[in-house]
Amino acid sequence: MSLRSLGVELHCRCILTESKPIGRHIQKVEIIAPNSHCEDTEIIATLKKTGQEVCLNPEAPWVKKVIQKIMSRRNTQ
Amino acid sequence: MSLRSLGVELHCRCILTESKPIGRHIQKVEIIAPNSHCEDTEIIATLKKTGQEVCLNPEAPWVKKVIQKIMSRRNTQ
Repeated sequence: MSLRSLGVELHCRCILTESKPIGRHIQKVEIIAPNSHCEDTEIIATLKKTGQEVCLNPEAPWVKKVIQKIMSRRNTQ
Repeated sequence: MSLRSLGVELHCRCILTESKPIGRHIQKVEIIAPNSHCEDTEIIATLKKTGQEVCLNPEAPWVKKVIQKIMSRRNTQ
């Protein structure tokens, strides 16, 4: 079992965050609490079609809204 | 590249959700938007010490609060 599989990261994963509101392209969001290896909360979104991972700014209002929206959403596809 | 690595799940991952407020044990939260294979939003928390994965109810008020709290938190360890 790797350290990473235990949810332990050895450093911050995000350097840059996405500034454009890309909410509707997001399939999945990972929110990682601050820990001994990274003092900031990190949010990593996985995009729907490409599976690309994009870091988001936890303090950006649009990011908070997108997460609330995903949490309250049922499938409308 | 597997379907799963593209963020595509073939079925819902959660059957039961945790009812106890386990917020302070959470290291990481994954929020998966509804998609063609699972009509519900799924929230999967990874616990700090054990790395255990636990499903949370997106509609539970304590779950919403925990996510808001993690997003606004900096490291205080």
